[in-house]
Amino acid sequence: MEDRFEISELMDFYAPLLTEKQLNIMNMYFNDDLSLAEIAELNHTSRQAIHDSIKRCYKQLRSHEDKLRLKEKYFKRESLKENFIKNLKKNNTDNLSNELIEQINKSIEEIINI
Amino acid sequence: MEDRFEISELMDFYAPLLTEKQLNIMNMYFNDDLSLAEIAELNHTSRQAIHDSIKRCYKQLRSHEDKLRLKEKYFKRESLKENFIKNLKKNNTDNLSNELIEQINKSIEEIINI
Repeated sequence: MEDRFEISELMDFYAPLLTEKQLNIMNMYFNDDLSLAEIAELNHTSRQAIHDSIKRCYKQLRSHEDKLRLKEKYFKRESLKENFIKNLKKNNTDNLSNELIEQINKSIEEIINI
Repeated sequence: MEDRFEISELMDFYAPLLTEKQLNIMNMYFNDDLSLAEIAELNHTSRQAIHDSIKRCYKQLRSHEDKLRLKEKYFKRESLKENFIKNLKKNNTDNLSNELIEQINKSIEEIINI
């Protein structure tokens, strides 16, 4: 099956675009670690149907990322922030206190993570 | 028809989720200012079909925003940044130079706008 870590990351950004049924199946498989057979039984369907559904969800999540790039942008924002803070510490010509640098770091983190 | 300004904002965030055909129609109507009749002629269809298509796109754009809130988050980020910079200027206990504050402002702006 597809890469669990990648799917879990994509779900962080695009889960709201899945249907409730898709979301349930994805959570059972990737968060609750149920087997395809167990999920199939709970949904009164076949193991193959669940397998296909997960494959379709994965394709949808990848397609959303290709179009909107929310995951890529998130990691780019984090990396820009880290470089900015690192440079602030390195070329500290204004003699910023550690507290202030930490405050700037936290504020940017808050802006990224809303 | 729907609010042009709101649609234009929603298009900034969700245009990649529209089909190429939908995108064409929306651009003709909202950016190139063509009339429904003109768009209908160019697409070899009826004025009513174009009207319905624009209505459907608008509904889709609104639904994406309800689910992902990218527009809301963008404006929230901008407002958090402005408050942060304002407070940095107000309680300037570290005697930050104007240049440095401007640099912090620009870096956060870059992080928001990638």
